[in-house]
Amino acid sequence: MLELGSTSITIVTVIAAVGLASLVVAAVLRRQVLAAGEGTASMQEIARAVQEGASAYLRRQFRTLALFAVVVFGLLFLLPGDSGVKIGRSLFFLVGAGFSASIGFLGMWLATRANVRVAAAASGPGGRAEGARIAFRTGGVVGMSVVGLGLLGAAGVVLIYRGDAPAVLEGFGFGAALLAMFMRVGGGIFTKAADVGADLVGKVEQGIPEDDPRNAATIADNVGDNVGDCAGMAADLFESYAVTLVAALILGKAAFGEHGLVFPLIVTAIGAFVALLGVVTTRVRGSESGLTAINRGFYVSALVGVLLAAVAAFVYLPSTYTGFQGATAGLETHGGDPRVVASAAVAIGVVLAGIILWVTGYFTGTTSKPTLHVARTTLTGAATVVLSGIGVGFESAVYTAGIIAAAICGVFLIAGGSVPLALFLVALAGCGLLTTVGVIVAMDTFGPVSDNAQGIAEMSGDVSPEGAQILTDLDAVGNTTKAVTKGIAIATAVLAATALFGSYADAVTTALSKVGTDLGGDIAAAMTSYEIISPVTLVGVILGGATVFLFSGLAIDAVTRAAGAIVFEVRRQFREHPGIMTGEVRPEYGKVVDICTRDSLRELATPGLLAASAPIAVGFGLGVGPLAGFLAGAIGSGVLMAVFLANSGGAWDNAKKIVEDGKYGGKNSEAHAAAVIGDTVGDPFKDTAGPAINPLIKVMNLVALLIAPAVVSVSVGDDANHVLRLSIAVVAALVAFGAVIVSRLRAARVDAEGALEREPVETFAGSPRP
Amino acid sequence: MLELGSTSITIVTVIAAVGLASLVVAAVLRRQVLAAGEGTASMQEIARAVQEGASAYLRRQFRTLALFAVVVFGLLFLLPGDSGVKIGRSLFFLVGAGFSASIGFLGMWLATRANVRVAAAASGPGGRAEGARIAFRTGGVVGMSVVGLGLLGAAGVVLIYRGDAPAVLEGFGFGAALLAMFMRVGGGIFTKAADVGADLVGKVEQGIPEDDPRNAATIADNVGDNVGDCAGMAADLFESYAVTLVAALILGKAAFGEHGLVFPLIVTAIGAFVALLGVVTTRVRGSESGLTAINRGFYVSALVGVLLAAVAAFVYLPSTYTGFQGATAGLETHGGDPRVVASAAVAIGVVLAGIILWVTGYFTGTTSKPTLHVARTTLTGAATVVLSGIGVGFESAVYTAGIIAAAICGVFLIAGGSVPLALFLVALAGCGLLTTVGVIVAMDTFGPVSDNAQGIAEMSGDVSPEGAQILTDLDAVGNTTKAVTKGIAIATAVLAATALFGSYADAVTTALSKVGTDLGGDIAAAMTSYEIISPVTLVGVILGGATVFLFSGLAIDAVTRAAGAIVFEVRRQFREHPGIMTGEVRPEYGKVVDICTRDSLRELATPGLLAASAPIAVGFGLGVGPLAGFLAGAIGSGVLMAVFLANSGGAWDNAKKIVEDGKYGGKNSEAHAAAVIGDTVGDPFKDTAGPAINPLIKVMNLVALLIAPAVVSVSVGDDANHVLRLSIAVVAALVAFGAVIVSRLRAARVDAEGALEREPVETFAGSPRP
Repeated sequence: MLELGSTSITIVTVIAAVGLASLVVAAVLRRQVLAAGEGTASMQEIARAVQEGASAYLRRQFRTLALFAVVVFGLLFLLPGDSGVKIGRSLFFLVGAGFSASIGFLGMWLATRANVRVAAAASGPGGRAEGARIAFRTGGVVGMSVVGLGLLGAAGVVLIYRGDAPAVLEGFGFGAALLAMFMRVGGGIFTKAADVGADLVGKVEQGIPEDDPRNAATIADNVGDNVGDCAGMAADLFESYAVTLVAALILGKAAFGEHGLVFPLIVTAIGAFVALLGVVTTRVRGSESGLTAINRGFYVSALVGVLLAAVAAFVYLPSTYTGFQGATAGLETHGGDPRVVASAAVAIGVVLAGIILWVTGYFTGTTSKPTLHVARTTLTGAATVVLSGIGVGFESAVYTAGIIAAAICGVFLIAGGSVPLALFLVALAGCGLLTTVGVIVAMDTFGPVSDNAQGIAEMSGDVSPEGAQILTDLDAVGNTTKAVTKGIAIATAVLAATALFGSYADAVTTALSKVGTDLGGDIAAAMTSYEIISPVTLVGVILGGATVFLFSGLAIDAVTRAAGAIVFEVRRQFREHPGIMTGEVRPEYGKVVDICTRDSLRELATPGLLAASAPIAVGFGLGVGPLAGFLAGAIGSGVLMAVFLANSGGAWDNAKKIVEDGKYGGKNSEAHAAAVIGDTVGDPFKDTAGPAINPLIKVMNLVALLIAPAVVSVSVGDDANHVLRLSIAVVAALVAFGAVIVSRLRAARVDAEGALEREPVETFAGSPRP
Repeated sequence: MLELGSTSITIVTVIAAVGLASLVVAAVLRRQVLAAGEGTASMQEIARAVQEGASAYLRRQFRTLALFAVVVFGLLFLLPGDSGVKIGRSLFFLVGAGFSASIGFLGMWLATRANVRVAAAASGPGGRAEGARIAFRTGGVVGMSVVGLGLLGAAGVVLIYRGDAPAVLEGFGFGAALLAMFMRVGGGIFTKAADVGADLVGKVEQGIPEDDPRNAATIADNVGDNVGDCAGMAADLFESYAVTLVAALILGKAAFGEHGLVFPLIVTAIGAFVALLGVVTTRVRGSESGLTAINRGFYVSALVGVLLAAVAAFVYLPSTYTGFQGATAGLETHGGDPRVVASAAVAIGVVLAGIILWVTGYFTGTTSKPTLHVARTTLTGAATVVLSGIGVGFESAVYTAGIIAAAICGVFLIAGGSVPLALFLVALAGCGLLTTVGVIVAMDTFGPVSDNAQGIAEMSGDVSPEGAQILTDLDAVGNTTKAVTKGIAIATAVLAATALFGSYADAVTTALSKVGTDLGGDIAAAMTSYEIISPVTLVGVILGGATVFLFSGLAIDAVTRAAGAIVFEVRRQFREHPGIMTGEVRPEYGKVVDICTRDSLRELATPGLLAASAPIAVGFGLGVGPLAGFLAGAIGSGVLMAVFLANSGGAWDNAKKIVEDGKYGGKNSEAHAAAVIGDTVGDPFKDTAGPAINPLIKVMNLVALLIAPAVVSVSVGDDANHVLRLSIAVVAALVAFGAVIVSRLRAARVDAEGALEREPVETFAGSPRP
């Protein structure tokens, strides 16, 4: 066990204190947000309904997930390993899950209170600048909390477990990722079921505007923005933060010894300062758009981050590789100054974030060529809109994946081709990318808060026309920042997953060394082969990609099904209470929120179980080599699929905005109807399936990392137990497929009930009644 | 060099004779087809227009491709290697390309003559049975020609080059695959541009039926069926046949020596008998549907194929591994009888074909649950139709990929985990799958022929109502058989590509052995590492997947663009000649055919150049290890994407048929409008991008195989030339990206001309005017 020197302990203690300080800053910012005016009574009433719905959903979700967490907590004890480490790992699994849930809850809690304040401020004397300030500060609270809890957790583990910290951190990261995945999927289904359902009945069938209070699904739609885009996204970015940090600490310890364990913490602590700087300095000047201000905040903080990280490297790291204790053997033969190398890796990560910011903006912004092209295809109808959006999505996925790939290659060159060093540097690049996470979270939270503010303004009717226009502008900015965040999140997923590959290989090597040299024949050799040319490893690659496709398909189907339930409920209310349409009767908003809650909790089980059990089935069924292939396939297909889904959805969304702003006939034209269809297709793409792939990749990587020693011990060597191995694989496969089949049966029941067929005439929603 | 024994030479000579005999059978069947009645003068006139359009397109395409083939022919000489082998390889590259082109031309030539005969027969005394018989015999001609030319080519190479045959066969397979890819892409763009363009103006804007003679795009639509579905598909299946055979011969020689070189030829010669059996015995009995008859033909011939292959194995192969000469060392320690092992591998391939047939039918058939579900979503509008179709596509892709993966794992278990043996057996399973190719080609050709027959009947107005109904039924059968063929084709692609991996590794090992043991440091080691956990190899996986996504996006975009041009031309004709609508003036069909020809030839360059240059850029840029990762990523993403695109398209197509048969409001209802949008989205999915991925995968594998020795020689060892290496990589990357950028600029020009905006009112095509 590596003992930390007193300098290191001091530094890590300081970092833990920085984490605490970040939380204090978050509390201060929170008070500032809450101090703003809450608007009229009618606005407050609407806000309260959204708050209640969101809290009720999250409480029910946490109750369900707590049970699941306890089961996983127990399963973690079944894995082989030193019992002290096992207890720590299981405990910190709960801590990670708890932190992830808390961040999600905090994000939702504050967003549902900030929305009404932004709406009030926009029509007040402060106008646009004040509205943007509150929205951005709200994001700042979440951003500082993400950074603070991440630092606190990681530094805490290092202080308690010292050299054993990496193993315990696996539990911390796994807890964070698992919970975030469930929150992403569940929140994503909730928000898009409500959104699509509300649009299909309200905008399309009844011809009433978005957020019209007569639509029973409007409150659910606003609740959805908070539980999906706020809670889900905050948990997801916390998970990105935690997992990247975990990967960096594990690999840093392996590559650089004690220095490697401490340096990534320093870089992320710098991220705390950078986030604070970004949040405090971002303000809208004069008439500039909100996006300009946010971009400035991002680039300024990115630059400061790079500089500070370089200073830290030159102060803290030794100037030659021989200065490291407990480092990977042979590293000293690599030329280059480790301080330069480390700074360069961090810089690559930050630059990567900047480029992705730009590329995503290029493909999904309202003034960029690809989105304008999609908008133009509205003239030839919905089919061409769908096709052009898919084309844009595929293409942007390729460029984004290519840029991430180039960053990895760049890091590899800097590492002089040494694989252990390269893996650590990839993780460091991830840390660099995450120095901007505070600003990114702030940017992302901006979206749902201003979307909600606009909804409250519309529903209450208490906002001045100028105020309404300001809120519409802020909402459009929010669409782009949301798309950008997804790009950044998937980049962290690829970097973290690539880095975790190193930890995985390390775990396998250690486990194999205990088995001895005689693995037990050709089949055993194939089970441990990482070589892509081995047919079974190639099978792993195919299955990894298949899991991403299946997960995406399940998430999209879940939204379609749940939206159908909303459509029926809203129609029922319109039919049974004619007074709703005339404004005399208040719709039962709570019923729709309940249906969304019930359906999204039921639907999140299938993709969640698939993600957790697929690597177990592949690992125990085919071996650690094919499992590595599985992870590679999942990373490769995952990054492409995630960006494709996010960007085609973003392009459709903004193409619709372009038409609504008056192009090609404007609102209520046939072009608009085509644009609405594209946007509706994009909804589950960009807000349900796409963003959930990010935590999916990390959950599968961490499951693989956790089970690797167990897989090795049952599958090769003299003690191999093939009955046990295959039993585990079969059980895991049954869990995954059982979940899929249950979900299929449910879908078949919905179809068999013929619910949709009861109202064949009035149910069509392909084009609005002009 | 391995000298073949006299027994082997006799067998191979007999096999070549079987190939010739297959061609004779094809000629006999062709005469039977042409002997049928040609219908009325008006039908013949229409048929002649289609014949002329299709011939004109193929002639122009071949002129363009001939130039390209000559360039590649020259480039092949630049690769290192023995000059005798190099000359043979380059020559047989031309032979492979020529065979591929001939099969495509033959398929198109006959289909454009059979269509009118099927139309005539359907309204004649023979009715359904006679129509189906002619359509299926037409497929039989193409099927027997595929088998015949494949056997002749492969056996010819073995007879001429003996032990050097594998290297020469690489050229043969490459030529076949490259030409097939271009024909698939070009034909796919042609057929769908015409189809989508015709539907957008005719069905949707003017409200006239499909295949109405007043629509200037109808002849082009019918031409498209022939150049895309017939010529492209025939070339594609020939290429599958050739490449699988090539892989089997290369690996067979490595694993089993002389026996391994001859046995795959025996299996495929059996395929010739099986094909003949299937074609001759398939006839429609009484009132059964055409599909039942075709399925029966398939399963009977599959069973016979398995039995005959087992007989051949027991007669020809020795009973122990020690009986092989020149086999892989160490194979004799593997238990099991090689005769049993080989028979089992062939049987796995045949069973795989049967299962895929069933699964594809399940997901896309008009009576199956998933398609009925998609049809039902027409009630909630176009957005839900698109989403449910995408969900079905994703899910079916996962099952198909899983089944193929299971087959590979099964073969691996049979091989006892020996990688060289497993790779050969994978190729043998591919040969087994291809024993059914004759029947499959016949099934596939059935589709466009009956589609065309229906078109001719509709346009001429000379077919009785009963005859028209028979043709509609045959057309629906054709939709399903087309989807099935795509599933089988992609399965052959995965098996062939997996097997080619073995040849690739072999080529790399040989090249590395010439370089010596000192590769030249860590970077060089990473460039030659197949290990998936190496970051650069993982980058290869990501880039391989990205190429598939980009290729698909480009193909889809090309269709959207070309269809736009058709829309403008048809509109112009309607506007300038009002007599067209009243039936007084004949539209200028030829103009539309010309536009389709010009645009599809222009558009095929970009995806084609991408496919050929991406592996070169990755190989020379990153090394042979990452190139293996690239291929694995392309195979994994490719199989999923290909099946997703094919099956979601198939499900949309048949969902539309369900609605048109009267469900959910029937024709001209709003549900129908939603179904039409889904079908239009599916058109480029299933007939352009999806099927082209199959040859894409093989072209990239063969390019990698061909350049592997060159990559090794410039990238590692003392003679490494990094300037040359990087220059080649940069040039290849520039070719790929240059092509993409040229295509973007063209798109931007189309957008900038604002052509679509000139007629904003009458251009909308999202929903029909009811």
